[in-house]
Amino acid sequence: AQQGTVSAPGALQQRCVAGSAVCRPWGLRPPGGRAFHTASSSFQEVLLTSERYRVQRLPFSRVSDSDVAFFERAVPGGVVTNPEELKPFNVDWLKSVRGCSKLMLKPQTTAEVSQVLRYCYERNLAVNPQGGNTGLVGGSVPVFDEIILSTALMNRIISFDKVSGILVCQAGCILEKLNEYLEEQGFVMPLDLGAKGSCHIGGNVATNAGGLRLLRYGSLRGTVLGLEVVLADGSTLDCLTSLRKDNTGYDLKQLFIGSEGTLGVITAVSILCPQKPKAVNLAFLGCQSFAKVLETFTTCRAMLGEILSAYEFMDEKCMELVEKHLKLSSPVTGSPFYVLIETSGSSSTHDEEKLNNFLEQAMTSGLVTDGTVATDDKKIKASTWFIWISLVHQTLWSLRERITEALTHDGYVYKYDISLPVGKLYDLVTDTRARLGRSAKNVVGYGHLGDGNLHLNITAESYSHSLLDAIEPFVYEWTARYNGSISAEHGLGFKKKQFIQYSKPNEAVFLMQRFKAMLDPKGILNPYKMLPSSS
Amino acid sequence: AQQGTVSAPGALQQRCVAGSAVCRPWGLRPPGGRAFHTASSSFQEVLLTSERYRVQRLPFSRVSDSDVAFFERAVPGGVVTNPEELKPFNVDWLKSVRGCSKLMLKPQTTAEVSQVLRYCYERNLAVNPQGGNTGLVGGSVPVFDEIILSTALMNRIISFDKVSGILVCQAGCILEKLNEYLEEQGFVMPLDLGAKGSCHIGGNVATNAGGLRLLRYGSLRGTVLGLEVVLADGSTLDCLTSLRKDNTGYDLKQLFIGSEGTLGVITAVSILCPQKPKAVNLAFLGCQSFAKVLETFTTCRAMLGEILSAYEFMDEKCMELVEKHLKLSSPVTGSPFYVLIETSGSSSTHDEEKLNNFLEQAMTSGLVTDGTVATDDKKIKASTWFIWISLVHQTLWSLRERITEALTHDGYVYKYDISLPVGKLYDLVTDTRARLGRSAKNVVGYGHLGDGNLHLNITAESYSHSLLDAIEPFVYEWTARYNGSISAEHGLGFKKKQFIQYSKPNEAVFLMQRFKAMLDPKGILNPYKMLPSSS
Repeated sequence: AQQGTVSAPGALQQRCVAGSAVCRPWGLRPPGGRAFHTASSSFQEVLLTSERYRVQRLPFSRVSDSDVAFFERAVPGGVVTNPEELKPFNVDWLKSVRGCSKLMLKPQTTAEVSQVLRYCYERNLAVNPQGGNTGLVGGSVPVFDEIILSTALMNRIISFDKVSGILVCQAGCILEKLNEYLEEQGFVMPLDLGAKGSCHIGGNVATNAGGLRLLRYGSLRGTVLGLEVVLADGSTLDCLTSLRKDNTGYDLKQLFIGSEGTLGVITAVSILCPQKPKAVNLAFLGCQSFAKVLETFTTCRAMLGEILSAYEFMDEKCMELVEKHLKLSSPVTGSPFYVLIETSGSSSTHDEEKLNNFLEQAMTSGLVTDGTVATDDKKIKASTWFIWISLVHQTLWSLRERITEALTHDGYVYKYDISLPVGKLYDLVTDTRARLGRSAKNVVGYGHLGDGNLHLNITAESYSHSLLDAIEPFVYEWTARYNGSISAEHGLGFKKKQFIQYSKPNEAVFLMQRFKAMLDPKGILNPYKMLPSSS
Repeated sequence: AQQGTVSAPGALQQRCVAGSAVCRPWGLRPPGGRAFHTASSSFQEVLLTSERYRVQRLPFSRVSDSDVAFFERAVPGGVVTNPEELKPFNVDWLKSVRGCSKLMLKPQTTAEVSQVLRYCYERNLAVNPQGGNTGLVGGSVPVFDEIILSTALMNRIISFDKVSGILVCQAGCILEKLNEYLEEQGFVMPLDLGAKGSCHIGGNVATNAGGLRLLRYGSLRGTVLGLEVVLADGSTLDCLTSLRKDNTGYDLKQLFIGSEGTLGVITAVSILCPQKPKAVNLAFLGCQSFAKVLETFTTCRAMLGEILSAYEFMDEKCMELVEKHLKLSSPVTGSPFYVLIETSGSSSTHDEEKLNNFLEQAMTSGLVTDGTVATDDKKIKASTWFIWISLVHQTLWSLRERITEALTHDGYVYKYDISLPVGKLYDLVTDTRARLGRSAKNVVGYGHLGDGNLHLNITAESYSHSLLDAIEPFVYEWTARYNGSISAEHGLGFKKKQFIQYSKPNEAVFLMQRFKAMLDPKGILNPYKMLPSSS
């Protein structure tokens, strides 16, 4: 491991980011995962969704004792009715919505899922498919008493082919576990996100998760090669091919990618995995303006080319919150904007040379004013060094990945996940901040700049209707004015569904409703989610 | 430009591939395009599809004089009724199928397409959407008297954003023209294929074209960001967003990607374009067995990593045909298999070093026995050298890209475009060759090995039912046995539609038929194509 390989003129400071001040992410959260059970408020304090949002329950049947008896035969050992045990699965990770389901089913096989849905379809029982329950738009928990259909026990790896890099696994495999398994074989998952320690691959596909590697490996629409899906009526659709190319008919699986559990339950996934990069380098930089963040991006994309694997940004408010609530400290301070650049490649020498050339250029031209670099030098083989590299990398990434978590400690969070032309990206934060003034506690902006994806977050001491009214539809109208998307990667779930028309024309929404009606005519799958009601 | 940078021990021979013997692709074909009009047989010699395949015309209306009068008002200057002028648009590029349309419409705007389809829908007139007519499965020409709806005049670039690399254009833009336009701005199209000189981007999207860059930039399902589509009833679906990420509802555009004109007419495309690589290198290698072709692939993927942009293979029969029919000559001879490797990257020094390390390894371990390399050395700036590099690259690529063309000169061609696990890829060629014996003229195999995509081609003096019976369903059954796809990238069109069940389960085909019935209830869009008839 090496730090301080940059010897260019200018102000780039080389600091030991592995020092005790910053290297303690492992003490603060379960490895790799969001700390669900350590959050401050208890589940009971979360208002019932039906009360906060005043929704009407649709006329689905209610679960009876004989239904439970049926499920106990159909899903042996996978029926949960204990109210205490059910609590965390009725509340979302943000503690912003709460349902009151009395039954959770944990099937282990596709056949069991099929049996469950066939029965629910006949009995007109509503179902809420649930993966790791890490969604941010209230899509992953029941709104009323829908049966929670959890993929938690469907966590078997079915096959992995080292020649093609194609992994086939059940939907409930945890993203981080899959990545660990692949790393042993010299591959990685094509996606990575903050919730990796608890999110399920099936949930990732169902929400078309984006995350940190999209810039490099593209979206799940390209990397997911096949799906097995159980439809609302219990029939199984087997499109679980393991082929890189297949042009035989319409690509049905695409309809289920990003459908948020409303069209079918994904039971297995076939996905193309890239090789594990031999060298990974990080640079954490300070910029004096958002214009410089943009120019740094254009410069680094041109100079790093094929090895650029992430370009993330955050404003100084984010950094303040991460330092205040999580006690992380940054090796770079005093800038209004920070940028995290990752390179992944097959030659540490070549990659470092490219990165150093870029950093020299960025400093000489005044694009960045401060920074730290953690490179990955294969010449140093001692295992303690490897642990050190890993710590440095994890620490730098924590500053970016744990912003979401820091925000939850700041109060009630209004979350917006916006796609915009990159040039306009930060203007939305500035305008929102100006509009809300002191009625908000903090207005922060960060995100995947390389993908044109802004996470705009507003915190307040507690939830208030008036603040919400000041934010919405302002943020959506602003986004629509610049042809942006009101949900870049989080989906619509329960909380954004009524705003779909800001990003989609009526004809498109109407067509979506027809697809929903065709595939789930009784509407039992994840009701109240994603689409505005057709009435 | 540089040749002969490899100085490893062994038999890799460095030859001047720019010599007169090989450097003449430009004299033989229209720049970049397939030589449609130079093929041997005349259009009239092609048997009518309805006669060769004994299909029944469906009860669509027939075009009347008043229909033509309407279209002359709706599509001013874009109505073709002259039989001579219509001929090339009734016959496919392979001259394997022929329709008898009496009317071609060439709209210039989406509004015109919309008017045309609304009218056809009301009048129950069948429509055959047509791009560059370069398809290989009979999907791009009418089967009977369908109205040809050509995108030829819809060739306007709408916008290009240099920061994001997002291009928005009309569907009739020619792929090669788009690429030329982008190269001037430092970008390239994410796809490239032999027919680039005449194929339309709308047709590429409608058939989910794969081609030569898929290994590097992924499929159109990831790079196409938005589409504008006119549906069968004439309504326009505007999903033409220019955002890298958008999770607001079902991704409707995916249904039209690869739908072969059966669900709607694509009128505009938004597509993410990668930066133009600063350095492109080619290696053309000879291998003594297919096992060595595979091992060479695994080795080069590991050693070239992120700069590998193509790994194509061809057998010696392909090389014979290219030499015989097109008078191309290869710089590498005497091997049963040939491999074309392309690297694209941002540093010529780094890329050459990686390539040379790989070649040294490949030779030392006996994976390749002969080869030539064309690298791209930025130190040499004289323009004549650049022309020379370009010639060398084009010549090497011609050996691979023009196999399809060479085959058409060898007689009637039975074409198969198969996805298989890479390890099994060539066994299908060997088994087919053994099965057919002397009843075939040539049985050849080539393709995109890096994507697991084999092009199996069988030639004979002329079309014969008995040879076809010996090939089919043998090839499809063989493919199904190894869970392959009977169409990796060409689609199903007219000629493969009845074989879909070898790659898709009945439930999937049934669901496709429901989508078709929902979006095009009268079935007027590209009838007789892609899906087996539902009766």
